[in-house]
Amino acid sequence: MSPEEGCTAFAPATVGNVICGFDIFGLALEAPGDRVTAWPSSRPGVRIREIAGDGGRLPKNPDRNSATVAIRALLLSTGRHDGIEVSILKGLPLSGGMGGSAASAVAGVIAADALLGTKAPLEVLLQCSVEGEATASGGAHLDNVAPALYGGLVLVRPGRSRPVVRLPIPQELHVSLLHPEVEVSTREARRVLGTSVPLAEAVAQWGSTAAFVHALHSGDWDLLQDSLQDRIAEPRRAHLIPGFEAVRQAALDAGALACGISGAGPSMLSLCRGAERARAVGEAMASAFHQSVKFEASLHLSPVAERGARVEASSAETSG
Amino acid sequence: MSPEEGCTAFAPATVGNVICGFDIFGLALEAPGDRVTAWPSSRPGVRIREIAGDGGRLPKNPDRNSATVAIRALLLSTGRHDGIEVSILKGLPLSGGMGGSAASAVAGVIAADALLGTKAPLEVLLQCSVEGEATASGGAHLDNVAPALYGGLVLVRPGRSRPVVRLPIPQELHVSLLHPEVEVSTREARRVLGTSVPLAEAVAQWGSTAAFVHALHSGDWDLLQDSLQDRIAEPRRAHLIPGFEAVRQAALDAGALACGISGAGPSMLSLCRGAERARAVGEAMASAFHQSVKFEASLHLSPVAERGARVEASSAETSG
Repeated sequence: MSPEEGCTAFAPATVGNVICGFDIFGLALEAPGDRVTAWPSSRPGVRIREIAGDGGRLPKNPDRNSATVAIRALLLSTGRHDGIEVSILKGLPLSGGMGGSAASAVAGVIAADALLGTKAPLEVLLQCSVEGEATASGGAHLDNVAPALYGGLVLVRPGRSRPVVRLPIPQELHVSLLHPEVEVSTREARRVLGTSVPLAEAVAQWGSTAAFVHALHSGDWDLLQDSLQDRIAEPRRAHLIPGFEAVRQAALDAGALACGISGAGPSMLSLCRGAERARAVGEAMASAFHQSVKFEASLHLSPVAERGARVEASSAETSG
Repeated sequence: MSPEEGCTAFAPATVGNVICGFDIFGLALEAPGDRVTAWPSSRPGVRIREIAGDGGRLPKNPDRNSATVAIRALLLSTGRHDGIEVSILKGLPLSGGMGGSAASAVAGVIAADALLGTKAPLEVLLQCSVEGEATASGGAHLDNVAPALYGGLVLVRPGRSRPVVRLPIPQELHVSLLHPEVEVSTREARRVLGTSVPLAEAVAQWGSTAAFVHALHSGDWDLLQDSLQDRIAEPRRAHLIPGFEAVRQAALDAGALACGISGAGPSMLSLCRGAERARAVGEAMASAFHQSVKFEASLHLSPVAERGARVEASSAETSG
């Protein structure tokens, strides 16, 4: 392998919570996503060669970047002492509920795994990615990392014998994701949740998560729609998100099954039946946002992506 | 119809919560159950002719009995002014987590519906039964009434557009139910729960309910076992139930998938794979209970019953 032969991996945007499953459900989009290229280096350790697409805002200190921390965890867990340099191409916003730090972490370990030929099991790649994301987000959550790595729509239960379970995806399930160019502190979004919830709300929520999974399996769209209720995060976080009520109302009026907060926000997502409906809903969301708020926003339309992160190229050209 | 031609209906014992789904899951056993016979009466109103199997403890005042209150609700909702007399044969304990008041209410409406030929829709029969149970238990919960009426393993979500959803039942799923002859106040069992739960426990719980439903659909016994965790009721209620820890340990040692509290207790249930295993588990539970506690207990073994309440007979002989 020549010194300049690198491996590039892609990891997609993800939606945490999926409206009704705070901290337990996540799904992957087809695009956009982050790309990480890993090159061998004769100097041991993991370093960042360059970062693009971040407006110069991400730390180049490898101790503080989710991709490099994740790659270090991979080296450690596979007993390797290689030198690796990476370049990171951010296709995702640095914050905002699209799983950007998770995508960089996952793309990093996938690229490094391919470069080194470690062929680490998925569970190891998951654990290393989680360590990377924890660095960037201040907390280890599986609901972005797992769908970025596995793809699809997943149930995550950290600490259980099966921490990630892939759920069936109704074929026509599409996502309209609106990302406002405004920052909401993840710390603040966590703080407003408090540390306890009323029992009655909790019961309604676990009824909804059970109904959601049943609806996915049985292809029951009415039940799916009825299950997409967030009694936990949304009532406590909606005020942090500019234009939330206007955007949601527009989405529902345009025929969305449901509209809610993506992860900790401020991104908002709608789930829709069919690509055409998702487009109409997305445009209605964007229009309502522009009318009610003076910020920019970007719109992303995608089916739930079956595939998660993958190696895209493994040659010198891709590093150019 | 002669004055003495009655209709008898049976409604089975039910298990509320099903370990991981506090207030949202319920399942029906094949037996035991309650029987209610309804006769036409020339005097309008609903009256109790006799009650058997209750040791004389149930009120004969039709305002305070779950079967007669439920039948009155049925008359009201179907616009009938008939006179009905009922006799109630309690096969279930009056309290204790086997759904006794729900079974009487459900058997009552099914018997009356058959007698009058009202052919009320299931949703109406459900609502009337809930009203009956609320009289007896002081609160309206669907998790016993719904499986007693529909049979099977159900998800209940009161107030939603689909309040009862039937879940798939793995063919080998069996229940070992131990009913101790000791009273635990349902009011006290509710009180110890408090009115809020820590967010982290709530998240774990809705992860478990989601995993449980996925496991039922996919026939994944390992995941089913891993999902049968109660982070909500059990830690707060176990101390109210004599012998709980000893019984649970014995059940797990004998190969139960899980062992927990049935409804508000003190009945305990184990879920098992296969009838033979359920028998061994049940015997281990009973033996552990007798060794650790000085009360009597009865053991009930049953698959999850596909069928719920039904008319058993419609003739004069059954009233004898």
